[in-house]
Amino acid sequence: MANVKLVDEADARGKTREVYEDIKKTFGVLPALFKAMGNNPELLELNWARVKTIMTKGRLDRKTKEFIAVAVSATNACHYCINVHTAMLKQLGATDEEIVEALAVADLFNGLNAFASGLEMESDLKP
Amino acid sequence: MANVKLVDEADARGKTREVYEDIKKTFGVLPALFKAMGNNPELLELNWARVKTIMTKGRLDRKTKEFIAVAVSATNACHYCINVHTAMLKQLGATDEEIVEALAVADLFNGLNAFASGLEMESDLKP
Amino acid sequence: MANVKLVDEADARGKTREVYEDIKKTFGVLPALFKAMGNNPELLELNWARVKTIMTKGRLDRKTKEFIAVAVSATNACHYCINVHTAMLKQLGATDEEIVEALAVADLFNGLNAFASGLEMESDLKP
Amino acid sequence: MANVKLVDEADARGKTREVYEDIKKTFGVLPALFKAMGNNPELLELNWARVKTIMTKGRLDRKTKEFIAVAVSATNACHYCINVHTAMLKQLGATDEEIVEALAVADLFNGLNAFASGLEMESDLKP
Amino acid sequence: MANVKLVDEADARGKTREVYEDIKKTFGVLPALFKAMGNNPELLELNWARVKTIMTKGRLDRKTKEFIAVAVSATNACHYCINVHTAMLKQLGATDEEIVEALAVADLFNGLNAFASGLEMESDLKP
Amino acid sequence: MANVKLVDEADARGKTREVYEDIKKTFGVLPALFKAMGNNPELLELNWARVKTIMTKGRLDRKTKEFIAVAVSATNACHYCINVHTAMLKQLGATDEEIVEALAVADLFNGLNAFASGLEMESDLKP
Repeated sequence: MANVKLVDEADARGKTREVYEDIKKTFGVLPALFKAMGNNPELLELNWARVKTIMTKGRLDRKTKEFIAVAVSATNACHYCINVHTAMLKQLGATDEEIVEALAVADLFNGLNAFASGLEMESDLKP
Repeated sequence: MANVKLVDEADARGKTREVYEDIKKTFGVLPALFKAMGNNPELLELNWARVKTIMTKGRLDRKTKEFIAVAVSATNACHYCINVHTAMLKQLGATDEEIVEALAVADLFNGLNAFASGLEMESDLKP
Repeated sequence: MANVKLVDEADARGKTREVYEDIKKTFGVLPALFKAMGNNPELLELNWARVKTIMTKGRLDRKTKEFIAVAVSATNACHYCINVHTAMLKQLGATDEEIVEALAVADLFNGLNAFASGLEMESDLKP
Repeated sequence: MANVKLVDEADARGKTREVYEDIKKTFGVLPALFKAMGNNPELLELNWARVKTIMTKGRLDRKTKEFIAVAVSATNACHYCINVHTAMLKQLGATDEEIVEALAVADLFNGLNAFASGLEMESDLKP
Repeated sequence: MANVKLVDEADARGKTREVYEDIKKTFGVLPALFKAMGNNPELLELNWARVKTIMTKGRLDRKTKEFIAVAVSATNACHYCINVHTAMLKQLGATDEEIVEALAVADLFNGLNAFASGLEMESDLKP
Repeated sequence: MANVKLVDEADARGKTREVYEDIKKTFGVLPALFKAMGNNPELLELNWARVKTIMTKGRLDRKTKEFIAVAVSATNACHYCINVHTAMLKQLGATDEEIVEALAVADLFNGLNAFASGLEMESDLKP
């Protein structure tokens, strides 16, 4: 299942149990990656606080953030994250057409990034 | 300025000139990368048709797509594209706070991607 | 098993056989990647000389180097190398807790790399 | 200096000021990336808690973690992070020879990762 | 089979059917990735025009382009593309020895890229 | 010039001097990256043997290999290697048009890699 043991819900105590409960309350599921972080309860707690704040607070809506998540994960070929966050996108109502569209943007910029870097283009348009 | 010559507007003829005009009409500027593609007019035309369709049509709004563009370009350290598309985001009204927020999502998933891949996590949640 | 034929131990002759023996003496196993390199004996010999020198000589200890190996392989989503070098780390006595800790560093910097590149941060601290 | 405004020490208030002080106490410097995070005080606080825990606690020593940081940042071509963390490595006593050695490991595995992935090698050695 | 539905040949109508026929005429097969693009016929058409022009026209021969394709796909750990384009290389007559040789070049430069970036080398040789 | 000292030709002794001479004889120049490797003469010698064999021997011609080198370096945004090897390509007679064409292939596959990985496409065509 993974290269380290996973701390399952049945074995979770104290802080770990609390974090697991909060993850399930927030996302409806407990993705296995958090069970791997359970090997280091302090890291689990810090990572979860960060994931929760970044994904559920602020000015950008959750769906926009999930599209960014899938686009970045596609760029890095992280199949675990692609699957988890495409599933979350579908739970949020995203259609196949929208997912293809977001990945077309990821395709476009992964391509243009190599083109522009490979030509040593200088930025002529700066923020 | 670049590792190949750029075809400037003054030297653009025929199809190349038409594409350049359409780019300026669509984005308000003519990013230098298109001038490098000007070395190959057929490629320029095909790429522009694709960029225009992907970035301005479909169901996701332009701003969402520009956030994906910047997140992917940050992942690939493409400074040319980061600068051009952060500039476009600001033209579309994005604030520093929103840009930091989108990059926090890119930070989060570039991190989690390495964590999940490095642990050989199996996808327990599939779309 | 792979997209090219593997040169198995039973079929290895001359220089290839010598290299295979040295790999087994050094690491205790003959990872299949070297059998793929066996298609080009000169490349196999040069690569093995380099792997052996980099991984077993110098000032950094082997375990530190294996942590770097797994962190880099996680960044590139190379599952073959992640598995081989996590196995080697465990043979060297690394615990699940240490492996999670090393990957937390890989997670941290893959994240910060995208953040810093995406914001076009200038280096204010130089070596 | 960056694509978003930086919150300088002179302008830092409340939580932001406290975090800045703690960063300086821990690392001896306040890297500019944290001043960019200052645009979002909650994110700054969460990220700093994570950086501090990952880089200064646990079983692996700080120098090993800085070598992983530089190796990952080299893989991602993040010049900001390469400079900051090579500077930190030198403050921790690392020599040019050791830095070249750590990057030789990064070179080795970035290479082997592409080789193994490109040949579709199956993991014959699992942890 | 994929995270979105595939538009199979039997269900393809109009423009989609025409594109599918042209792909089969050009490459001898209809790779599944195009069936995923079939969810967005306009994108499919634009992408196919680009793929066909880039891969079959111009001054570099098809085999050179397929070696670049496999080298880039190996760098990004895209197993789908590695498999499809290694198969195409073999159809074009490439031997195991040549494929290992091309991947040795990819190995070499993925390695040197990390080395040169990690040392902050300045370009002393410019085109 | 770099984050470690460079061993200049004037200071090169013994094996290092011999390798430097051979590099200049082979490529016409001594790229600075080898001067950084000069900090570790054994590593320099092993790396040079590998570079020389991979880039100048075998079945693929030198120009094809340089195109792969630039395509991979563009994918990794390694500006040092992009510049050195685009310069070498021009010395070998490559035109701007050919360089744009090779980078269009790199653009195409960096894009398709993210698309195929992001959709979790299964390989339907295997070598």
